Amino acid sequence: MSKKVVLAFSGGLDTTYCVKYLSEERGLEVHTAIVQTGGFSDEELKEIEEKAYKLGVVSHITLDQTETFYEQCVKYLVYGNALRYNTYPLSVSAERVFQALAIAEYAKKIGADSIAHGSTGAGNDQIRFDMAFKIICPEAEIITPIRDNQLSRQDEIDFLISKGVDGDWSKSMYSINQGLWGTSVGGKETLGSRLSLPEEAYPTQVTETIPKKISLTFDKGELVGIDGKIYDKPVQAIQELNKIASPYGIGRDIHVGDTIIGIKGRVGFEAAAPVLTIKAHHLLEKHTLTKWQLYWKEQLGNYYGMLTHEGQWIDPVMRNIEKFLEDTQSHVTGEVFLTLFPYRFELEGIESKFDLMNPEFGAYGEMNNAWTGEDARGFATILANQNMIFGKVKDAAEETVSE
Amino acid sequence: MSKKVVLAFSGGLDTTYCVKYLSEERGLEVHTAIVQTGGFSDEELKEIEEKAYKLGVVSHITLDQTETFYEQCVKYLVYGNALRYNTYPLSVSAERVFQALAIAEYAKKIGADSIAHGSTGAGNDQIRFDMAFKIICPEAEIITPIRDNQLSRQDEIDFLISKGVDGDWSKSMYSINQGLWGTSVGGKETLGSRLSLPEEAYPTQVTETIPKKISLTFDKGELVGIDGKIYDKPVQAIQELNKIASPYGIGRDIHVGDTIIGIKGRVGFEAAAPVLTIKAHHLLEKHTLTKWQLYWKEQLGNYYGMLTHEGQWIDPVMRNIEKFLEDTQSHVTGEVFLTLFPYRFELEGIESKFDLMNPEFGAYGEMNNAWTGEDARGFATILANQNMIFGKVKDAAEETVSE
Amino acid sequence: MSKKVVLAFSGGLDTTYCVKYLSEERGLEVHTAIVQTGGFSDEELKEIEEKAYKLGVVSHITLDQTETFYEQCVKYLVYGNALRYNTYPLSVSAERVFQALAIAEYAKKIGADSIAHGSTGAGNDQIRFDMAFKIICPEAEIITPIRDNQLSRQDEIDFLISKGVDGDWSKSMYSINQGLWGTSVGGKETLGSRLSLPEEAYPTQVTETIPKKISLTFDKGELVGIDGKIYDKPVQAIQELNKIASPYGIGRDIHVGDTIIGIKGRVGFEAAAPVLTIKAHHLLEKHTLTKWQLYWKEQLGNYYGMLTHEGQWIDPVMRNIEKFLEDTQSHVTGEVFLTLFPYRFELEGIESKFDLMNPEFGAYGEMNNAWTGEDARGFATILANQNMIFGKVKDAAEETVSE
Amino acid sequence: MSKKVVLAFSGGLDTTYCVKYLSEERGLEVHTAIVQTGGFSDEELKEIEEKAYKLGVVSHITLDQTETFYEQCVKYLVYGNALRYNTYPLSVSAERVFQALAIAEYAKKIGADSIAHGSTGAGNDQIRFDMAFKIICPEAEIITPIRDNQLSRQDEIDFLISKGVDGDWSKSMYSINQGLWGTSVGGKETLGSRLSLPEEAYPTQVTETIPKKISLTFDKGELVGIDGKIYDKPVQAIQELNKIASPYGIGRDIHVGDTIIGIKGRVGFEAAAPVLTIKAHHLLEKHTLTKWQLYWKEQLGNYYGMLTHEGQWIDPVMRNIEKFLEDTQSHVTGEVFLTLFPYRFELEGIESKFDLMNPEFGAYGEMNNAWTGEDARGFATILANQNMIFGKVKDAAEETVSE
Repeated sequence: MSKKVVLAFSGGLDTTYCVKYLSEERGLEVHTAIVQTGGFSDEELKEIEEKAYKLGVVSHITLDQTETFYEQCVKYLVYGNALRYNTYPLSVSAERVFQALAIAEYAKKIGADSIAHGSTGAGNDQIRFDMAFKIICPEAEIITPIRDNQLSRQDEIDFLISKGVDGDWSKSMYSINQGLWGTSVGGKETLGSRLSLPEEAYPTQVTETIPKKISLTFDKGELVGIDGKIYDKPVQAIQELNKIASPYGIGRDIHVGDTIIGIKGRVGFEAAAPVLTIKAHHLLEKHTLTKWQLYWKEQLGNYYGMLTHEGQWIDPVMRNIEKFLEDTQSHVTGEVFLTLFPYRFELEGIESKFDLMNPEFGAYGEMNNAWTGEDARGFATILANQNMIFGKVKDAAEETVSE
Repeated sequence: MSKKVVLAFSGGLDTTYCVKYLSEERGLEVHTAIVQTGGFSDEELKEIEEKAYKLGVVSHITLDQTETFYEQCVKYLVYGNALRYNTYPLSVSAERVFQALAIAEYAKKIGADSIAHGSTGAGNDQIRFDMAFKIICPEAEIITPIRDNQLSRQDEIDFLISKGVDGDWSKSMYSINQGLWGTSVGGKETLGSRLSLPEEAYPTQVTETIPKKISLTFDKGELVGIDGKIYDKPVQAIQELNKIASPYGIGRDIHVGDTIIGIKGRVGFEAAAPVLTIKAHHLLEKHTLTKWQLYWKEQLGNYYGMLTHEGQWIDPVMRNIEKFLEDTQSHVTGEVFLTLFPYRFELEGIESKFDLMNPEFGAYGEMNNAWTGEDARGFATILANQNMIFGKVKDAAEETVSE
Repeated sequence: MSKKVVLAFSGGLDTTYCVKYLSEERGLEVHTAIVQTGGFSDEELKEIEEKAYKLGVVSHITLDQTETFYEQCVKYLVYGNALRYNTYPLSVSAERVFQALAIAEYAKKIGADSIAHGSTGAGNDQIRFDMAFKIICPEAEIITPIRDNQLSRQDEIDFLISKGVDGDWSKSMYSINQGLWGTSVGGKETLGSRLSLPEEAYPTQVTETIPKKISLTFDKGELVGIDGKIYDKPVQAIQELNKIASPYGIGRDIHVGDTIIGIKGRVGFEAAAPVLTIKAHHLLEKHTLTKWQLYWKEQLGNYYGMLTHEGQWIDPVMRNIEKFLEDTQSHVTGEVFLTLFPYRFELEGIESKFDLMNPEFGAYGEMNNAWTGEDARGFATILANQNMIFGKVKDAAEETVSE
Repeated sequence: MSKKVVLAFSGGLDTTYCVKYLSEERGLEVHTAIVQTGGFSDEELKEIEEKAYKLGVVSHITLDQTETFYEQCVKYLVYGNALRYNTYPLSVSAERVFQALAIAEYAKKIGADSIAHGSTGAGNDQIRFDMAFKIICPEAEIITPIRDNQLSRQDEIDFLISKGVDGDWSKSMYSINQGLWGTSVGGKETLGSRLSLPEEAYPTQVTETIPKKISLTFDKGELVGIDGKIYDKPVQAIQELNKIASPYGIGRDIHVGDTIIGIKGRVGFEAAAPVLTIKAHHLLEKHTLTKWQLYWKEQLGNYYGMLTHEGQWIDPVMRNIEKFLEDTQSHVTGEVFLTLFPYRFELEGIESKFDLMNPEFGAYGEMNNAWTGEDARGFATILANQNMIFGKVKDAAEETVSE
C-alpha cells in the first residue's frame, strides 16, 4: 500500500510540480489541502480544487481558518499594535503560520506519513512550514521537492510537460499574496534596495479621490463597527474597511526586514484595513491606558510580532503574552474619527468613556485642579534628588582627585 | 544689596509679569536670559532683548545653544529614531531641557541667589525647569510667580498696567513654539480629545503641490547632505530640509501623551525635517544593521526619548545610552531616496556600501547561494526542538492525568 | 461635630503621638486601624488595641489582610521570582502597600474626612501611604504630623508627657518590621555603607546545626506542601517553612537599594521562607518553561517587583502583568528537593511531569535522538548567516575605502 | 598535494580519533591547535603538544588567548554582572567561543582548506565552533567526524587500536572543563533532573574551615586588588582570588539551562572567583550607580550573557553593548569587604568616594536634609495622579453602564 502524503497546494507551478513528483516519482498517495485565511474567493478555491483533482490527487480539501486566524492571532496583533520594524502589519507572516498549522493538524488527523510543501530554500515560508510540521506531527517526514533539488522554473515546466500536464506557466511580473491581514507584493524592484514599486504593481488601483470622513468603533480593543454600523464579527468589519479604504491606496509601503534565515528581505504590501485599524486602535489606547500599560504593551506587542514573524507563534510564551494583551484591553472602547485621502489618512480624535484626558482633573499646560503648584514643585525636587546627589558626589570626588 | 535672580525670559505676558514682580514686589536684581535652540530669528532675539531692557532688567543675555542642543541631544534622537508613542519627535520636550540647563549654568556662573521661570503648574515645562535648576545649582531658590499664585491672564495684565507696562496682550488663537527640532501648536482643539487642528493653525501653510524627489545623505547616522550637497554641519542640513519640506505640510500630526505630572496631554506639531530625517535614517538602518542591533536600538532609543521628554536627560544612564547609540552608527552611511508630496512622503530606497541586502549571498525567496536547502531544513528542525519537546511532554503529562 | 480621621496605628511612639495630637490639638475624632499582614501575633494585636482605647480613640479596628496580601501580591512575587536588585524579596515594601490600601478602603467605608500616618519625610513608607490614600479616597485630607513638623523623638515624648501619656519610649537598638513575606532589620550599621549587621541584630537566632533535607511541593507555581504534607492554603505552607528554616539563619542579607525619593537606602532582612520559596520555584521553572517564557518572566517579574516597591502596585499594568505571570504557571508543578544548612541551603533537584529535560529527546552533550548532526550543522550555518554576511560586506566596504 | 585541515585538539579520545581519521582516512595534512583561556598548566599544554606530534600531525600550536579572553569578554561579563538564569557565570560558554574564534583565525592565517572539531551533535559547543568558523573563514569546509558518524566511544577506541594508537581511554566519572572563568563538572547526576553532584565530583575539595575576611578593590569596574595588594593585571587578581576562595567550596552550583539546540541541559560548576567578583561588583554598583543605570545594566548585561552563551558573541550588537557597559563603570571604583566561610560568603559593605548613600543629603527613614516633608507630599500627590484619574474615570464609566 502506498504511503499518504499531505501537500500544501495552491495551484501554482511549484505545487503542481509537487503533485506530479510525489505521486509519479515517489509513488505516494497525494492528499492536497489549501488553507483559506481570507485571501481567496470561492471561485478561486473551486478552481484550485478542480486543478487538484485533474492532476490526480486522491483527495483535496479546503480548510477555512479565517475566523481561527482572527481569533487566535490577528486580534492580538491589533491589541499589540504589531508593526514589524514600525511598518509592516505582518500580513503574510502571520497567515502562513496558520496555514502551516492547519495543514499539520490535517495531516495528523488523516494519519499521513509525510507532509510536503513547495517552498524554496531562500525564504521564510519554508521555516514556518517546517517548524509547524515538526511540532504538530513530528513523526511525519517533511518532503520539499523544490528546495531539495533547487529546481528552476524551466526544470519544473519540462517535467510537467513530460507528464502531460499543460498550463499557462508564464510568470507574472509581480508575485501577489492576498489574505485577511494584507496583500504582499514582490517583484524585480523588491529584489534590490534602491527602487520602490511602481503604481501598477499594487493589485488595488487608486480610484477614490474625494476625502472621506469615517469613524471606527472599538470594543475592548476589537474593531466592531464602521460609521456607527456594528458588525456581527470583527472579521467582517476588517473586510468592509478594506473595501472602503483600499481604493484610496492607503496602507501601502515596503517592508525591509530580517528574514528568519539571516538575510535581509524586502517586500511591498498594501494593507489598508490593518494599518488603519492599528493606528486608530493605538490612538484610542493613548487616551485610555496608563503610561506603564503603553510601555509594556509596546515591548510585548513588538516581541509577539517578531516571534509570529519568525514562525514561533506556537511557543507557550505567546499564550502568556496574549493573556497580558487581552487584559490591557478592558478600557479600549470608543470611537475613533479619521479622514481618508488618496494615499494617506488623518487621525482626527476619539471619544471614549474611558478617556483619561479629562478636564475635570486638569488641562495640560493650563489648569491644575487636582494638584497645586506646590505639589508640582515638591515632585520636581524629589525627582531631581538622585541626580542632584550624583552631581555633588561626583564634584566632591573629583576635587579629592585633583587636590 | 539686593539679591540676584536669573529669569528665563521670552518677552511674553507671563515672563513680562515676572520681571516686574521680581524687581518691584520682591526687590530682586533681575537678570534675564533667553536660550536660542534654533527657533528664533535674529530680529526676534533683538526685540526680546529690547523688551527686557525696557522693563528695567539689570542685564539680558541670549544664550545660543543650537549647536550644543544638536550635538548633545538631537543627534542621539536621530540615532535612536526617537518618536514618542510612535509619533512625536520630542520637538519642544528636548529643547526645553536644554534651555533649562543653559539658564541653570548661567545662573551658577553669575552667582545668582535664585532662578525664576514663568511656567504654570499644569504642564511639563515647570518640571523640566525645576529639575535642571535643582541639579545644576541646587543652592539657588526657585521662584515661580505664575505657578505659585495661580494667576489668570487678567491678573497679570492688571498688574502690568498698574506698573505702567503696556503691550498687546491679546491672546493668539494658537500657541506656537518653534525650535530646531520642530514646532508645537496648541489651541482649543488640543484641549479636548475629539478634534484635529484646522489647516490655519499650522504656522507653515502648504504651498507646494508638485511632487519632488530628493535624496538625503547620512554619514555614520548623521544627516550631512541633501541632493548631493554636503553641508558643513548637520544643523544646516536640518534647517535646509525644513525649508524644502515644510511647504509640503509634511511631518504634521497630533501627539497624545502622558505628561510628567500624570495627566494626558495633546499637542499638535509640524516637524518636516525631524520626521523625514528619522524615517529615512531608520530605513537606512534596516539595511545596514543586524536584527539584534535594530532590536536593542529600539529599546534604548525609545527609553532615551522617554527620559528626555520627562526632564531626566541629565541622568548618567543617558550618557551610557548615547555611547551605545553612537557605536551602532558606524555603518549607517549612505543615500536615502524619497519623494515629497503635499502632506506626505514616500521612502523609495537606499544605496549604501554597508547594505546587508546583497544578492551575492542570496535573494529573499528566490536564491540561496550561501546555504543549502538542507541547511535550512536542519535549522528549522533545531529551532522547532523546544516546542516539539514541550508538546510531547504536555501530551504525556495530560495522558497521565486522564488515566 | 468634629471631623473623622482614620489613623494607621501601630502602638509605637510616632503613632501614639499622632493620636494625642490629632484628638487634642486638632480636635478630630480619631479612629485607629492596624493592618495584619502576617507579622503580628494575636497577643500583640490585642495589646495594640488596648493601647489605642487607653489613648482615647473613638474606635479601633484590626484589618486582617494576610490572605488578601498573599492572593493579590505575594503569589505574583513568587510567580515572578521577584528579588529586588537580585537580593531582596520586597518583604516590607509589598506589605506596606497592602496596609495602606486597607487603611484607605476603611477610611472610605466609614466616611472619614482625613487619613493620618506617622511616617517621617525620609523613607519609602510615606510615599506608599500617600499614594494609596490619594488614589483610593482622593477627597480625604492626608495628615502627617511627624513629617510635617519634623519632630524629634524627644519632642514627641515631651508632648506625650504633657498630655499625661507615659510609656517606655527607650529606643531599641534595631528597628524590626515583621510580616508574612519577611522581617526587616534596621540599625546603626545600615545607616552607613561599610558594616554588616551583627548576629544579635537578627530577631531569629541560629539554633539549628544539623543539615536537613526537605522537599517543597508546588502546584501551578504556588507552594502547597512541605515534605509531602499538603496544606489547605499556601499561606500556611509559607508560615510552616519559616518555622523550619528560620532557625538555620537562611534568607538573611542586606538590601542596598534606590528609595522612591531618590536616595540610596540599606536595610537588613531575614526571610527564610520567601528566599527558599523563590529559589526553589525558579529552579522548577528552569525545567518546565521554555527559554522565551523564562526571558519574559524575568523582565515582567522584575518590573512588577520594582513598581510594587515604589508604591505603584495599584497601576492597571500590574493587573495585566499578573495575568501574564499566572498564565505562565500552568506547568510549574512538581517537587523541589533541597538541603538546609546553617546560614545556607542547597538546591538538589526536581521532579515534575512537565520537566522538559527528558532523555527521550536527547541528553545534553551526549545523545541526539530527536535530530541529526546534519540538522545541527544546518542550524549553525543559518544562525551564522547574518554575521557572515556582515563580515563580508564590512571587508568589502573597507577595501573600497582603502583603495 | 594534500589539503590542509586545522583541528581543535585537546588530547582526549575524540580529538585523538579525529587526528587519525583526518590524516589516514581523509588524507589531509593535519595541523592541530589548542587554545589556552586560563585552564591549562604549562605541563598539560606540553603533554598535549607531545601527544599531537606523536600522532603524526604536521604542526601543533598553542594559542594563548587568556588576556584576549579577559579583555574582550570576561571584563564585560563582570561589568554586566552576567549570571545566566541568575546562577551560572558562563564559565565554559564564553571560553569556548574564544577558543573557536582563535582556531578560526589561525586556520585563516595558515590558509587551511578545512577546519575540524570533535564535538558531538548533542551539545552547545558544536554550534559555537561551527558559527565562529562560518563567520571568520566561511570558505573553509567544516569537518566533524564524531558528530557526522555518531560514533560511540568503543567505535573510536577500536579505530585507534587498528591504527596502532594506544592510550588509557577509560572514562573518568566526571567530565571536567577548566578555565579562567570557572570549571564545569558533568556526570551521571547532571544527566537527570533530580540529583546534585556529590562532594567528590568537584575538582577542588573543601580544605579551609576558618572564616576569612578579605577586601576586593575595583577600579572602574575591574577587579584590580585583593586585601590592598594591587595586581598588574585583573587576570592575576582573578587567579589569585580563585586560589584563596576555591578551598572554601565557594561558587559551586548546578546550572539548568536552555541549550542553543533547544533541549534543557544541566551542568555543575565551581567558580569561586567569578561568583565573588560579580557579587562584590554588583554591590559596589548598587551604591554608585543611579536607578536607571542599574535597570538598563541588568537588561543589557543579561542579554550580553545570553548571546555569548549562544555563540553569538560576534554580532556587532555585542560591541555596541560593550560600549554601554564600559561607560557605566566610570564610578564603579572602591573597596568591597566580605567574609569567606566554608561553602558560602557574606558581603559586608563597601567604601567608595562615589558612594551615593551619603548622609549629607538624608538618611533613609531618618533624616531629610535635601528636601522637605512638603516636597515628599507633593511628589506622592503627583505620582498618584494618573491612577487617581484612572480610578475616577473608571468609576464614572461603570456608573454610566449600570444606570
